[in-house]
Amino acid sequence: MNIPQTSFPRIVIVGGGFAGLAVARGLENQELQVVLIDKHNYHTFQPLLYQVATGGLEPDSIAFPLRKRFNDVDNFFFRLAEVTNVNAEENILETSIGNLEYDELIIATGSTTNFFGNTNIEKYAMEMKSVPQALNIRSLVLENFEEALLQSDLEKRRALMNFVIVGGGPTGVELAGALAEMKKGILPKDYPDLDIRQMKINLIQSSNELLNGMSKGASTKAEDFLIKLGVDVWKDLRVLDYDGTTVTTNGNDHFDAATVIWAAGVKGKVIDGLSSECLIERPNRLKVDRFSKLEGYDNIYAIGDVACMETEKFKFGHPMMAQPAIQQGTVLGKNLVAKYLGKKQKPFKYNDKGSMATIGRNKAVVDLPKWKFQGVFAWFVWMFVHLFSLIGFRNKVIVFMNWVYNYIRFDRETRLIIRPFKKKNQYSFQTENKS
Amino acid sequence: MNIPQTSFPRIVIVGGGFAGLAVARGLENQELQVVLIDKHNYHTFQPLLYQVATGGLEPDSIAFPLRKRFNDVDNFFFRLAEVTNVNAEENILETSIGNLEYDELIIATGSTTNFFGNTNIEKYAMEMKSVPQALNIRSLVLENFEEALLQSDLEKRRALMNFVIVGGGPTGVELAGALAEMKKGILPKDYPDLDIRQMKINLIQSSNELLNGMSKGASTKAEDFLIKLGVDVWKDLRVLDYDGTTVTTNGNDHFDAATVIWAAGVKGKVIDGLSSECLIERPNRLKVDRFSKLEGYDNIYAIGDVACMETEKFKFGHPMMAQPAIQQGTVLGKNLVAKYLGKKQKPFKYNDKGSMATIGRNKAVVDLPKWKFQGVFAWFVWMFVHLFSLIGFRNKVIVFMNWVYNYIRFDRETRLIIRPFKKKNQYSFQTENKS
Repeated sequence: MNIPQTSFPRIVIVGGGFAGLAVARGLENQELQVVLIDKHNYHTFQPLLYQVATGGLEPDSIAFPLRKRFNDVDNFFFRLAEVTNVNAEENILETSIGNLEYDELIIATGSTTNFFGNTNIEKYAMEMKSVPQALNIRSLVLENFEEALLQSDLEKRRALMNFVIVGGGPTGVELAGALAEMKKGILPKDYPDLDIRQMKINLIQSSNELLNGMSKGASTKAEDFLIKLGVDVWKDLRVLDYDGTTVTTNGNDHFDAATVIWAAGVKGKVIDGLSSECLIERPNRLKVDRFSKLEGYDNIYAIGDVACMETEKFKFGHPMMAQPAIQQGTVLGKNLVAKYLGKKQKPFKYNDKGSMATIGRNKAVVDLPKWKFQGVFAWFVWMFVHLFSLIGFRNKVIVFMNWVYNYIRFDRETRLIIRPFKKKNQYSFQTENKS
Repeated sequence: MNIPQTSFPRIVIVGGGFAGLAVARGLENQELQVVLIDKHNYHTFQPLLYQVATGGLEPDSIAFPLRKRFNDVDNFFFRLAEVTNVNAEENILETSIGNLEYDELIIATGSTTNFFGNTNIEKYAMEMKSVPQALNIRSLVLENFEEALLQSDLEKRRALMNFVIVGGGPTGVELAGALAEMKKGILPKDYPDLDIRQMKINLIQSSNELLNGMSKGASTKAEDFLIKLGVDVWKDLRVLDYDGTTVTTNGNDHFDAATVIWAAGVKGKVIDGLSSECLIERPNRLKVDRFSKLEGYDNIYAIGDVACMETEKFKFGHPMMAQPAIQQGTVLGKNLVAKYLGKKQKPFKYNDKGSMATIGRNKAVVDLPKWKFQGVFAWFVWMFVHLFSLIGFRNKVIVFMNWVYNYIRFDRETRLIIRPFKKKNQYSFQTENKS
């Protein structure tokens, strides 16, 4: 890997997400050597992926080059690699570009889509955890309408314009809202020779309310907003299967749809080689103590989505969101510095700053610890918070310009099929309308 | 194809580049049915592709959705399809999504990279005629440096940092300049543990001056600029072959390089099914008269790069650039409208507005018909003209913001490997450093 051996202890961080960046920041300019490993050379601001998927933002404006982030830091090394295994006995991390010895290993690998073992859904449904996946959705949505134009079979045309989003969490809600706004503002203009009224956006939630974990007011208001935007919200409905043609559920309803986006669950991305004791089956997270230390290890830590820190308040670990990841990373950074300075380490305490979701223009819901509100003001708060959290001045400016433009023009202009998505379902005109 | 039959004559345009858009604009709101066919759903502003390839701009900001362009136009239809053949006898165009009858057919398919039959170079070298190709170059450049870090074999590391650009036209010159600025401003910060001085940028030109077709002053000044930026300019040197490892030339010089970008020539993208009489072998363009009409046909036209209109001044057709394409499209549009109004048609006359190229910050060369100048002012003129020519207000704003940012910060921030490029050459660490 060509990482120089120094007298400084080597701290290896796997993953450049919110958690990984936070801990790396905390270790800057200490007498430590920090190695960050990620399979991408950029950090992804996942909360805005749905806007990339719906043509509202260009991917480059929500991603940030990891190397640039640490341009100014000494003793920092980045390596573009996939981690294959950890050999904890010998403190060696095995990767696609060779092995690396570590003194402290921090696992910040985040989470991946959880299909709960349904291989059909995994094969045919779309997921949205990375920039390439968001671009795939963007391509597929647009390709579907190009195909619908050519489809003379009415049933199939309807299916091409039928969108099923599984999972009523923030991702599902925000994606459904964004698609509904595309239906209102853009698609009728882009496809005047299609009857866009036939487009259906179905949001399916297995429980009886959206945005579980947020306040009752937020979830009911979010549902109102979605219904106003023309989204069909299905509650207490569980998706059983999708064969690329039809979504079957545990109810009487089924959906013929060319596009199913699976936002119903995530699971931790665990590294091979760790003892099974520290693994929590559902949803595949690593059990850590209040110092983010992995159960059964002295120098391996886990933070963010992949970590499960059971506390009084969070019996099943903290929510798999940006805030706990950032806070765990920050605290772990401080603790590691303290450790090597021989100072006392502080246990992690989650400071819940609240949560929010946006449904569409002037439509958002915000739960702050002491104040819960919805509507226009909430929407501006949502935008401000997300702009503020974006990494990089350029990104902030570009995203802001896009939002201003989209707001004034009721538009989402980055609707380009730059990365054509090869369909796996049954509705592709390549097989049908060629004649 | 589901295009309604109307009483209006149907005009089919193949290609949504500069020429295709210009002619389509000219046919707006006439008693004509216009069908635009392109294999992409967006228009590409090719003059700025090199900035996408070098991380200066996001792809979305130089592309524009074709459907949006004609949102407001009646009797206009866009179809996303590949044209496979033209059956001129029956006035039928054959495409990947079915056949289409036409009254007038306009071929605006543009040009593609010309490897002059060298299959090795075609296999191993990069080209830059489309957004995906530009993103491939962006990925490859960055991947090379990630690999160079890991490469202990000094020869191979040098090769990974050795860039060969073949062709001293605007594309080659602008790309070489942009790479040189990456070398100065960004790469040393991003790769502190690499000796970036080992990075070489070679620009190889077969003739004895750069920017053929521009003024002597422009070409010599461009060369000065490049040399100042540290580019190795090779003139009177012809590349014979590239096997993925070594570039061989007709001189004594050869280059061990992991990256070769082929900007040495383009050729027309001709549609199958046309008689060979109208085809001009070099470089594969279609022979048209002063009314852009294809030799031997009454209702088939060719405009832009693919068209070769031989005139006194341009014995081998007009330069394969944006200006002639736009002007030919505009004139053809007027002439077709005139034809159906029974009015007189005007022969095409090229109005040479001059040409320009940029080498780097504050470094550009501009040839106007009456005034030729280089340097800072030329650079601002270049930027203004390109901003002005960009399609779409949002694109103009985003590109402008990026340029301001890049200028102030000496930065190019969109350096993300979003679309990893599978290497075809011999230097990939995937095969080498895995152990």
